[in-house]
Amino acid sequence: MSVTLPTGLSSARIAGALDAIRAEIGAEHVLTGEAALEFRDPFWHKNWDDYDASGVVQPGSVEEIQAVLRIANERGVPIWTTSTGRNNGLGGASPRVKGSIGMNLRRMNRILEINEELGYAEVEPGVTWSQLYEAIEAGGHRLMVSTTDLGWGSVIGNSLEHGGTYLPYGADFMAPCGMEIVLANGEILRTGMGALPGSKAWHLFRRGLGPTLDQLFMQSNYGVVVKMGVWLMPKPEVYAPLWMDIPREADLIPLIDTLRRLRLDRTLEGVPCLYNAVTLASTAFAQQRSRWHNGEGAMPEHAIDQMARDLGIGRWTVHAALWEDDAVADHKIVKIRKAIEQIPGATVRANKHAPEEIPNLPAPPDRVLGGVPNLEFMHMVSWYGTSAGAHAGTGLVAPLQGQEAWRLHTLLRNVIEQEFGLDYIAYPALINARSYLHVFGVIYDVEDEADTRRAYDACRRILEESAKAGFGEYRAHLDNMDFAQAQYSFNNHAYRRFCETIKDAVDPNGILSPGKQGIWPQSYRGGNRPA
Amino acid sequence: MSVTLPTGLSSARIAGALDAIRAEIGAEHVLTGEAALEFRDPFWHKNWDDYDASGVVQPGSVEEIQAVLRIANERGVPIWTTSTGRNNGLGGASPRVKGSIGMNLRRMNRILEINEELGYAEVEPGVTWSQLYEAIEAGGHRLMVSTTDLGWGSVIGNSLEHGGTYLPYGADFMAPCGMEIVLANGEILRTGMGALPGSKAWHLFRRGLGPTLDQLFMQSNYGVVVKMGVWLMPKPEVYAPLWMDIPREADLIPLIDTLRRLRLDRTLEGVPCLYNAVTLASTAFAQQRSRWHNGEGAMPEHAIDQMARDLGIGRWTVHAALWEDDAVADHKIVKIRKAIEQIPGATVRANKHAPEEIPNLPAPPDRVLGGVPNLEFMHMVSWYGTSAGAHAGTGLVAPLQGQEAWRLHTLLRNVIEQEFGLDYIAYPALINARSYLHVFGVIYDVEDEADTRRAYDACRRILEESAKAGFGEYRAHLDNMDFAQAQYSFNNHAYRRFCETIKDAVDPNGILSPGKQGIWPQSYRGGNRPA
Repeated sequence: MSVTLPTGLSSARIAGALDAIRAEIGAEHVLTGEAALEFRDPFWHKNWDDYDASGVVQPGSVEEIQAVLRIANERGVPIWTTSTGRNNGLGGASPRVKGSIGMNLRRMNRILEINEELGYAEVEPGVTWSQLYEAIEAGGHRLMVSTTDLGWGSVIGNSLEHGGTYLPYGADFMAPCGMEIVLANGEILRTGMGALPGSKAWHLFRRGLGPTLDQLFMQSNYGVVVKMGVWLMPKPEVYAPLWMDIPREADLIPLIDTLRRLRLDRTLEGVPCLYNAVTLASTAFAQQRSRWHNGEGAMPEHAIDQMARDLGIGRWTVHAALWEDDAVADHKIVKIRKAIEQIPGATVRANKHAPEEIPNLPAPPDRVLGGVPNLEFMHMVSWYGTSAGAHAGTGLVAPLQGQEAWRLHTLLRNVIEQEFGLDYIAYPALINARSYLHVFGVIYDVEDEADTRRAYDACRRILEESAKAGFGEYRAHLDNMDFAQAQYSFNNHAYRRFCETIKDAVDPNGILSPGKQGIWPQSYRGGNRPA
Repeated sequence: MSVTLPTGLSSARIAGALDAIRAEIGAEHVLTGEAALEFRDPFWHKNWDDYDASGVVQPGSVEEIQAVLRIANERGVPIWTTSTGRNNGLGGASPRVKGSIGMNLRRMNRILEINEELGYAEVEPGVTWSQLYEAIEAGGHRLMVSTTDLGWGSVIGNSLEHGGTYLPYGADFMAPCGMEIVLANGEILRTGMGALPGSKAWHLFRRGLGPTLDQLFMQSNYGVVVKMGVWLMPKPEVYAPLWMDIPREADLIPLIDTLRRLRLDRTLEGVPCLYNAVTLASTAFAQQRSRWHNGEGAMPEHAIDQMARDLGIGRWTVHAALWEDDAVADHKIVKIRKAIEQIPGATVRANKHAPEEIPNLPAPPDRVLGGVPNLEFMHMVSWYGTSAGAHAGTGLVAPLQGQEAWRLHTLLRNVIEQEFGLDYIAYPALINARSYLHVFGVIYDVEDEADTRRAYDACRRILEESAKAGFGEYRAHLDNMDFAQAQYSFNNHAYRRFCETIKDAVDPNGILSPGKQGIWPQSYRGGNRPA
């Protein structure tokens, strides 16, 4: 799976490029050595240099990005772009190709517009979810942002990586609309109506004339997105978070089938989250496993059951919400309760709140589904009680059908518990109307090399077995990008070859994020193309 | 605006290509002369040969499409692909480049799957809206398709061209999911999860790993879509069509602002339609103007007012619908009525129906928003009482704001009434949450050359003035593709140049639909690139 670096990519050439960039954007914005460590993936072992960058540059404007790309083209140096650089669990801000120059866009953090009447914002890549939320509140706008769990992430970065958010605009591609992009050759492209001078509809309408390009720049290495529209939702009359607890592991089957019916008929909107007991205990309850199990190997069934009883939760918990008029919320709560409580022992708790109460709700997930980001999901990494807890993730796509969910669940438990002796931590699985994302995580001690190796081995084995069973990954860790992409092999990898044809056309020198999601420029392919 | 045909594209070469195609797909599936006339745009004057095809071929399978493309590549012959070929008002099945071979996919008309549990169908390009509707009903599936007005169109063709549909999946890109595409080189590409062997999520989840490609193949000439997933919605407890009549022309301003609030807060879902009195009279009422006005020039105000009184409609009429539980429909009807009736003189009529009543509803639009396609919208072309009525259209994108709508409205009326003496026919404008599509039509007599010329001149003038005012076209008539694309000129036409870079990479011989939406392959550009 090794990849040949581009011919002549020597330390001297990299150093020369960094010097040239210093001259363009200021030496204080070019980080190397210790100063760049903040942008090294904190969840990759310190002894492993596979994904070490040569340095990190932080341009502060479109013009400075253009200067960086010009230098990269002239010198054949790969640039790995990040927004805030918080892609933890999937490689952080580290580049796929060792020795690349990281280009981090944290300095470009302006919220260029919040339009209350039309319900959108225009942001730069350095704008975080928390920053956008705070600006909406500070401006007194009656709007909500569909946020991810961790508020320190970039709105643009997270959206481009297909990161999950939970409000009604959290469904596929519902929030982003209209981008400005710096192409590899430094040219500026505006998508959709943004290409029409004088148009006021850039962030209002998803299309233009001809092919729509926004999705082409998501999970891709075709350009650097420097502005994006993000749709915001009016605050509803009532916000009603729902907690559904399901007692038995095997109830996953009727639960998933019930959720499908409620989501398909639009009773449930947004993206309901499915937690197993371990995930809920480690996140919303900030618990550690030692309270119930101290031995080697995966937590046994009786310990998980005891934990669920002690915490008053199910083996499965669904967290969903309604954003509705009061009367509609009442109607839907009755309907959802009736549907879920057909599963013996299942319970549904619902509370209605005015929007202004959301920031003070005690359960972090209730704030997140109410559009208020926080950082409390990170408790998860303390599950095993280690001081340097870390997590590595995979994200698998499955049909929203009980039998399919059980098939994937069994596969995951077999690998993670039997082969690796680890606890089965279902990050909240994200429920769409027809499919769900089983985000799956391994918690480990990143200061323990063997533990770290085991975590990545477990993730790889999960991907191997899942792909064989027809479950694909939708967002790969750096270390799994080639492997995960190789699974999409229909017609001799026609998808990858088509994407690489475009890559060669729009970035002929292959400077932009080579290898991202398994898409490589010409100069890196040849004999080293992953099988 | 003229375009040089590819070097050496002679009649003999075309004839040779047609012979070679006959040998591959059977002579009976290669139409020339009279037999091909069915695929000539019926709304283009018979004396004008600008968009005449050399012949039309009808492959019956993916393999036969591959054979056609191989021959086209070998001989440098452009192929213009259509599905059913019903793109009337925008050029029908005629090709952009005179002398192209039309490739019509009507024979590939299998519905490959209807999945009731997961709410989707998989169709081939020849499947019409009516056919899909009938198959859903015949199979007893409790599902609805978000259909366009005219049931003879192709589900794939209409979706690829950004055609409007009206149910909740009618909003931007909500229905299509997962495509199989024959590329210019004959290779088969599957998008999203379709690239993973054994995946069951091809038509369930919009993404894969890496850039998402579906939208790249819409309004584009990058490939031939041969299979597509289309999402279907469960039948609701209640279907409630709503008619809102607004008495005065200037009420457009508060009406649009009210619709925005109702659509943004999700009280209204789907795609409400806005008609002016002339449009509603000519379509749902199947009226002709002579009943109220027989003179030259646009209908005067007093005649329009009289017509509205006689028909019991407003100067503006909004047709929308609810697809809901009974209790939610009741709540929303009260809320909508209260909001709309704040406009003095405005009235709201609402009726609730069980889904099984929809096919028998008397008003054709009530059937269309209930997922039952028909052909009655075509009454419109009889408005002026001519025997050969035709229509030519433009589709303009505007912010969903009263003042912006009034600005566009005034611009359109000035051009169409003052400059051209024609009636202002707002095809139903399609209301999204933040923007709307002002589809605008000119009715004319296609057997009258001067009348036909005037209609196309009027459309061109509309586009000129609209673009100057910042309103872009989202779907261009053949005759306006270059002109409309030229308006998207940000950064020296960066959008078009980017699209053409991709075009050259994925179709180096430029055989697939050259010029579609103003995107040209290398061999056609040079000095003839439109300004």
